[in-house]
Amino acid sequence: MSSSKPRIGIIGTGAIGGFYGLMLARAGFDVHFLLRSEYDAVAARGLQLNSAVHGAQALFPVQAYRDAAQMPPCDWLLVGAKTTSNAALAPVIAQAAAPGAKVVLLQNGLAVEDALRPLLPESLHLLGGLCYICVHRSEPGVVEHQSLGAVNLGYHSGPALDDAQRQALTEEGSALFKAAGIDSAAVANLDQARWQKLVWNVPYNGLSVLLGAGTTALMANADSRELIQAIMQEVVDAATALGLRMPENFIGKLMTSTDRMPDYLPSMYHDFAQKRPLELGAIYEAPLAAAAAVGFEMPSIRALYQALRFIDARNQG
Amino acid sequence: MSSSKPRIGIIGTGAIGGFYGLMLARAGFDVHFLLRSEYDAVAARGLQLNSAVHGAQALFPVQAYRDAAQMPPCDWLLVGAKTTSNAALAPVIAQAAAPGAKVVLLQNGLAVEDALRPLLPESLHLLGGLCYICVHRSEPGVVEHQSLGAVNLGYHSGPALDDAQRQALTEEGSALFKAAGIDSAAVANLDQARWQKLVWNVPYNGLSVLLGAGTTALMANADSRELIQAIMQEVVDAATALGLRMPENFIGKLMTSTDRMPDYLPSMYHDFAQKRPLELGAIYEAPLAAAAAVGFEMPSIRALYQALRFIDARNQG
Repeated sequence: MSSSKPRIGIIGTGAIGGFYGLMLARAGFDVHFLLRSEYDAVAARGLQLNSAVHGAQALFPVQAYRDAAQMPPCDWLLVGAKTTSNAALAPVIAQAAAPGAKVVLLQNGLAVEDALRPLLPESLHLLGGLCYICVHRSEPGVVEHQSLGAVNLGYHSGPALDDAQRQALTEEGSALFKAAGIDSAAVANLDQARWQKLVWNVPYNGLSVLLGAGTTALMANADSRELIQAIMQEVVDAATALGLRMPENFIGKLMTSTDRMPDYLPSMYHDFAQKRPLELGAIYEAPLAAAAAVGFEMPSIRALYQALRFIDARNQG
Repeated sequence: MSSSKPRIGIIGTGAIGGFYGLMLARAGFDVHFLLRSEYDAVAARGLQLNSAVHGAQALFPVQAYRDAAQMPPCDWLLVGAKTTSNAALAPVIAQAAAPGAKVVLLQNGLAVEDALRPLLPESLHLLGGLCYICVHRSEPGVVEHQSLGAVNLGYHSGPALDDAQRQALTEEGSALFKAAGIDSAAVANLDQARWQKLVWNVPYNGLSVLLGAGTTALMANADSRELIQAIMQEVVDAATALGLRMPENFIGKLMTSTDRMPDYLPSMYHDFAQKRPLELGAIYEAPLAAAAAVGFEMPSIRALYQALRFIDARNQG
């Protein structure tokens, strides 16, 4: 494990994996990309980033792989795949990992690390990554980046011996992103960070599918605004019931920052439009279960979740 | 006012007005139909009913009017128009009414009589009618009747002096329907009857629009079933908070009877598909307000209402 020049593997090269992988590669890191359906396109034409923040960027050739067995052992593995495929990815991650590697789940939702942990070798460190970014994939190998970009990391589990070592590892990961020009912070409490991220993801992801609308339309209508705020309040109240603290006036801040964003269609909207399974387990089911476990109900979120399950079942055939 | 052979006026000849008006006319009552956009079609071709219960029925010629001023004074006025046009209809109703006429709102929702009452002459009796029927209009003057058909009536307000007189008038109205082969009962508490009807209307009307689905699809999916039951429970709990009693195991009975119904698209679905305003005031806003007035919240229903308001605003242009 070379901390000066670690080797980075990207597991799942969609919008998130493509964006961060390309930025890290362009910053001089040795980055290896695992792909499935987009392998041919990326091997032939490379990765392209159209970024409102960083301009147009390209990476060619790309160190691209169809099979994790052919990847060199990676010190850091960034998982940008959908949470819906995590269980199937566990052996792939293990295969691409150098001894003592750090695996970072750049995913939304709750308890995604808990679900993956028992499927990974104990020698691997597992971290969560919260991406504050507006990004989507417009075609194979092409990533559109509209705004933001920060990644906050938190340690989940693994062989780190004490809090200081966990913090050091997390900061080491954060430093990789910062070296690539990306804002990043190490957070001490991953669970708190995941709940904080849910306050945005729970309303906007689901409502974009249910109402077929991006953030601009959802923010422009008084009723959907109220609904968004009511849903956010349920998430904040659930987090509080779980003993987690949200930032002061957090809902007001999220509303303001969303008002200032360009029109954005969250990832669940794209998943729905492309008939992929929706990430309902990580973004709805796990938070509902965690809250229910301490006796806290989130009735509007449960209603939204049930409506989305109906839509997802129909959309999947 | 002749109680032996009352003259009946139908205000708003859509699916509900068309069905009951045609059935009453075919039973020998003197029925006069007020129409707007469908006047030409009905004057030229009459009314047609395709009923799974009563077979194919036709009424031709039809005593049809464009203008209430040309209608003879009616002893009973059955209002089958959308609740969204009630305020505009008040002068029309007054114009078509014989002295001491009985006005029956054959409409869904809550507080529709409260809203209309101050706009009507004090000399008119106002009743509410709850229609338990699966019916829709397939084209101008053509009504499709899938199942059921009962109408329960309750006295709201007017010159009736005491409970006995109110009850007698209500039973007189009920008898008209029964004479036309339609099940009908006089109910003592209109508010209770309206809340009881809401237990079905609140989930199915809104979800048919939100999820683009009829009763069969909504009942076949475990998640939408749970959502329907949760919404029904909120209505039942709100009614209870208002001091009203729902029948024993009412939700279970409604689920069973809906399971046995042919696939049905509620009226709100048709309103949405035809870009008419949705009846959100009567079916959602009024119950939410009535419950809130006694400190009872219905969070899933409020979320559904806000989502529907967003959809309705977009649908109206």
